[in-house]
Amino acid sequence: MMTKQLPNLQVALDHSDLKGAIAAAVSVGNEVDIIEAGTVCLLQVGSELVEVLRNLFPDKWIVADTKCADAGGTVAKNNAVRGADWMTCICCATIPTMKAARKAIEEVRGERGEIQVELYGDWTYEQAQQWLDAGISQVIYHQSRDALLAGETWGEKDLNKVKKLIDMGFRVSVTGGLSIDTLKLFSGVDVFTFIAGRGITEAADPAAAARDFKNEIKRIWG
Amino acid sequence: MMTKQLPNLQVALDHSDLKGAIAAAVSVGNEVDIIEAGTVCLLQVGSELVEVLRNLFPDKWIVADTKCADAGGTVAKNNAVRGADWMTCICCATIPTMKAARKAIEEVRGERGEIQVELYGDWTYEQAQQWLDAGISQVIYHQSRDALLAGETWGEKDLNKVKKLIDMGFRVSVTGGLSIDTLKLFSGVDVFTFIAGRGITEAADPAAAARDFKNEIKRIWG
Repeated sequence: MMTKQLPNLQVALDHSDLKGAIAAAVSVGNEVDIIEAGTVCLLQVGSELVEVLRNLFPDKWIVADTKCADAGGTVAKNNAVRGADWMTCICCATIPTMKAARKAIEEVRGERGEIQVELYGDWTYEQAQQWLDAGISQVIYHQSRDALLAGETWGEKDLNKVKKLIDMGFRVSVTGGLSIDTLKLFSGVDVFTFIAGRGITEAADPAAAARDFKNEIKRIWG
Repeated sequence: MMTKQLPNLQVALDHSDLKGAIAAAVSVGNEVDIIEAGTVCLLQVGSELVEVLRNLFPDKWIVADTKCADAGGTVAKNNAVRGADWMTCICCATIPTMKAARKAIEEVRGERGEIQVELYGDWTYEQAQQWLDAGISQVIYHQSRDALLAGETWGEKDLNKVKKLIDMGFRVSVTGGLSIDTLKLFSGVDVFTFIAGRGITEAADPAAAARDFKNEIKRIWG
């Protein structure tokens, strides 16, 4: 009997202070598969956040969501030595930046080290193929928080893009305004990871909220 | 007699540690017009860097080079309250992100507060017009550090793009591998700001290197 790979659950820590991020991590870290040092928090407190998360959760996947646009080798090394397994590059970064980031994170983290490309704005499938050719096979499909605030939401157009990226050979994470109620929109799509931030960390009981996400994932993809 | 506006000189502090960035800032801050808290350093040490620069140089323009891709309002507020006058958004950020960033930085910094769009990868003039329409009139034309390392350099193609952006109404900063010898490539182009990093901060005498840049700017544009 084949074991089906369920989508992972990733919590994004997008606090503007280290204490808030750590408190949230402690409250839900054991319930999720992947813990993300969010961009807002990294820009506020630096990569110390990554080191704290690595020390708190030695067995979890830790992502540094740097959205790196340049100096990929330096930024990847800086985060990898603090314990990041994965690091994000923004989709409009050049291929040399992505390659430099990939080389640096693999040098420090070995097989655990990977670069993920964050999709914002007008990327193309030709670019996506270049990322695959550069040895990068994870992308993050994003509904921008500001776009969501401006009234946009998940639709058929988004799902078709996610499916096409999966068909190309990517493991695709999705994020942006996700709730337990919106997971079923992705039914039938082999999403690699669902990323939730405030939907988990600002729940009355964050651990219970994370378990509810996991249970809904099992119900739909199990 | 008209006074001609000379291009500004901006120093980018792209150190991976706070001490190195501060030492460099102290060595050249008084010689330049604009001091940049670089992305690499912000991701390493957080926005404390901005606050230190603001306290050291109360009369200079301070830029937080966040390359913000999302959560524009939060990131802009976080940096503006630390004293940043200008903050960068990456060109593939959505218009709502840029608008939110602009609103936040203006709320804290008043007329000094501005957003700059960093140009990486495949942006279009249609997008550039949307930035103007959103009240954003500064862009940064970039040769990626990793692209430079891969052997690419400034050429006619770059200069034509810079000129077209100026014709559209942008104040255009240029950066990436600039040296005193390469400034003359831009002769006849109304560049708003030249941004140099290691070309100044890693010179044997950083203050003298900054003065040499200023003198060459005066020679060409004065």
